[in-house]
Amino acid sequence: MPTLRDIGEDELIHRLTQHLPRRSDVLAGVGDDCAVVKGSPDPVLLKTDAIIEGVHFLPDAKPELIGRKALARVISDIASMGGLPQHALITLVLRPDLDVAWVEEVYRGMSELAKRYNVSIVGGETCRGPVCMISVSMMGEVGGEWISRSGAWAGDVLFVTGWLGGSIQGKHFTFEPRLEEARWLKQFYPPSAMMDLSDGLAKDLPRLAKASGVEFIIDEAALPCTESCTPAQAWGDGEDYELLFSIAAESADELMGDWKLEFDTPLTKIGSLVKIGAGRLPSFASRGWDHFAKDA
Amino acid sequence: MPTLRDIGEDELIHRLTQHLPRRSDVLAGVGDDCAVVKGSPDPVLLKTDAIIEGVHFLPDAKPELIGRKALARVISDIASMGGLPQHALITLVLRPDLDVAWVEEVYRGMSELAKRYNVSIVGGETCRGPVCMISVSMMGEVGGEWISRSGAWAGDVLFVTGWLGGSIQGKHFTFEPRLEEARWLKQFYPPSAMMDLSDGLAKDLPRLAKASGVEFIIDEAALPCTESCTPAQAWGDGEDYELLFSIAAESADELMGDWKLEFDTPLTKIGSLVKIGAGRLPSFASRGWDHFAKDA
Repeated sequence: MPTLRDIGEDELIHRLTQHLPRRSDVLAGVGDDCAVVKGSPDPVLLKTDAIIEGVHFLPDAKPELIGRKALARVISDIASMGGLPQHALITLVLRPDLDVAWVEEVYRGMSELAKRYNVSIVGGETCRGPVCMISVSMMGEVGGEWISRSGAWAGDVLFVTGWLGGSIQGKHFTFEPRLEEARWLKQFYPPSAMMDLSDGLAKDLPRLAKASGVEFIIDEAALPCTESCTPAQAWGDGEDYELLFSIAAESADELMGDWKLEFDTPLTKIGSLVKIGAGRLPSFASRGWDHFAKDA
Repeated sequence: MPTLRDIGEDELIHRLTQHLPRRSDVLAGVGDDCAVVKGSPDPVLLKTDAIIEGVHFLPDAKPELIGRKALARVISDIASMGGLPQHALITLVLRPDLDVAWVEEVYRGMSELAKRYNVSIVGGETCRGPVCMISVSMMGEVGGEWISRSGAWAGDVLFVTGWLGGSIQGKHFTFEPRLEEARWLKQFYPPSAMMDLSDGLAKDLPRLAKASGVEFIIDEAALPCTESCTPAQAWGDGEDYELLFSIAAESADELMGDWKLEFDTPLTKIGSLVKIGAGRLPSFASRGWDHFAKDA
């Protein structure tokens, strides 16, 4: 019988979610950064995520940063749909031999970030386990249209915020969710599609392209590489937590101009979306992060 | 420095949650079975929970029942607030060597229960870890007043549904969330306080009493013990997933009469709430389940 390692993450998710029950008030289910359900007056965004000791952080990491990261990842997902985060629920799985002070620091890291983004931590659950895990669920709202992965057209231009690659050196703990940038984009330059980069451009860009029914061409030389990172790292490394989005080509220059007046965050045109059959992978293509792959 | 084992679960939760940021649209935060936030027209219930291999299920348990349990626990929490479950998010932490078929069975168990209770599984996350964990978050709605733990008065009578104790023999996998019963109670005999029994009467009843500012007296001989269980087990065992609620003494007889016409589920008067200082523990009192206790 095949194992998870044999089929990989995307195929697993496809198999699990193809027959799920769906109520009539679900506007967008599995397949985007968040689910969207009917709300009044605005649609509601729902997202869950988890970080695990030994996978997303090491036992000797600063607990405050671990808590911060757990929450920031989910805020980043809400942002990438054009939404505003509101309420968070936290499930903590903890080893009984942990210092209470360690757990308090985890919560302090979450709590400070929550305050900054006007998020309430409204509930949670604690239980014991052999390794630590922090699962965060978030409810948010999105006024009017949410931004999905599936709205892009052949001809649209691709942009990313910030620098890519090498997140493991520290950015995976300290990144700022691009909430302000995403809200500004939604208002002034609504992307045709958007997502946040959590598994790396190599993995996430094909997801956006597939959801939109297009392919892509990347300008390898244009990739905004983190200092001391190669374009291959910018392409393949995970946990950037930057925005990847597409926009009609005719708006691209104006967007670049206005962006510079508004933000210090870099914005880079990295390529474009093309018809099925016309795309090509970068020369250094690697496949990005798969949670169940043999070398993961 | 104290560890989690030294201070226990309730003290940990108290320490973590005393300084959390809280938006003005939060109607009830930490401290009840679910959080309540403003919705339109009805308040929204939010709940998160997790089950873990080796703690809530053994690796050789039927995967379909594991999935069922993960979802049923959360439906039980929504029910105990008087609400209706709507949308669920699932985080799966999985060992990469697991058979795909095993994971599909977990999802089948969840999916079938979801259908029966009109719940949409709208999204999720999968990642690898050293043991399996299933975290479920749920959004629900509650028309009008939700039922908290904190509304009981001295003089109110205590009821439980079903049979208590010995859940480990199988009921912890196959229990039916008391959604229908809770909805009926809310409509016809609104409890002054209600919660579901997940950690056992010994642990959960003091929580209800404390939240309401009262104490309790239990009629030991009245405890509805599962066949082959002692009253001490009915008191101390966890994972009953029955409703525990209080109601004004003058409504108790009428409730009992109407209940019998409506449900096959047993309903038992097990004691009453009394003023601070007038309560007493059962003779066989044990302290119930603590996730971080030395013998857990």
